[in-house]
Amino acid sequence: MVLWDVARHTRLATLVGHTGALRDVAFSPDGRVLATAGIDRTVVLWDAARHTRLAVLASNAGSVTSLAFSPDGRTLATGITDHTVVLWDATTHTRLATLTGGNTEPVRAVAFSPDGHTLATASADKTVTLWNTDPQHTTNHICDTLARDRTTDEWTQAMPEMPYRTTCT
Amino acid sequence: MVLWDVARHTRLATLVGHTGALRDVAFSPDGRVLATAGIDRTVVLWDAARHTRLAVLASNAGSVTSLAFSPDGRTLATGITDHTVVLWDATTHTRLATLTGGNTEPVRAVAFSPDGHTLATASADKTVTLWNTDPQHTTNHICDTLARDRTTDEWTQAMPEMPYRTTCT
Repeated sequence: MVLWDVARHTRLATLVGHTGALRDVAFSPDGRVLATAGIDRTVVLWDAARHTRLAVLASNAGSVTSLAFSPDGRTLATGITDHTVVLWDATTHTRLATLTGGNTEPVRAVAFSPDGHTLATASADKTVTLWNTDPQHTTNHICDTLARDRTTDEWTQAMPEMPYRTTCT
Repeated sequence: MVLWDVARHTRLATLVGHTGALRDVAFSPDGRVLATAGIDRTVVLWDAARHTRLAVLASNAGSVTSLAFSPDGRTLATGITDHTVVLWDATTHTRLATLTGGNTEPVRAVAFSPDGHTLATASADKTVTLWNTDPQHTTNHICDTLARDRTTDEWTQAMPEMPYRTTCT
């Protein structure tokens, strides 16, 4: 991973840490963090100014082909060769969700809409899946689906990293 | 687990139309258009709200590996496996230019600088090429290189979709 001075066309730094070929790279919206995806099944978060490693996010299930920060910088979406998309909390470095059932072949690219409410995932299965990532919509959907709040057990099983709360009004 | 994922991040739509595996996806800066690139040698532009196809841009020369909208949303840059980069008018869906001579292997990724004046194209030839996409600079560059205006034949060959004009002052 090489950082270049765009104006001078000189090399600023070479970031070494992945153990396999890289597939994608993205800056966080505030420019402070650089995320890299590799066939070593990890995403590495780097301090963009100091060029040091901040965190290693392990996908376990397959190579990480693609990544994108949400426009607010809070979420990192990663496309995986096992056909899933994993969402990470970009601040706490915890896994928020695994999106399954949308793609039937490896995910090759991911992109957030500018308002952050939609995630598009493009796959080798020739299709694009659009996901709703609007928290308000999600909250409403839990109520619509279950017609009640989740129990604490259901919540813990579904979203182990998120503190429990009621979602129906 | 699946129920949870579906509940928390609902699937909005699956966009079907490409006849080969997808390689990249991007939203336009205003969020209204979704562009997808495929090994079927096409770019498809979709209405992001209605999930309908707006246009199919045919690359002819090779698989489309990557795409990026310019920050003003007017131009769509696409990396092609024939080593070229094709620029499209994102509004009229016409081909603006084919950038050749920068890469000697398939182009794998393209990105505009935030000011839109530079396009970076990464290639399997192990290099990144920086292109000046500032129209004023391009005009000057034609004069600097040729020390004269392009002939109408030269113009048509280089930029078939653009109306001819003199560029030297």
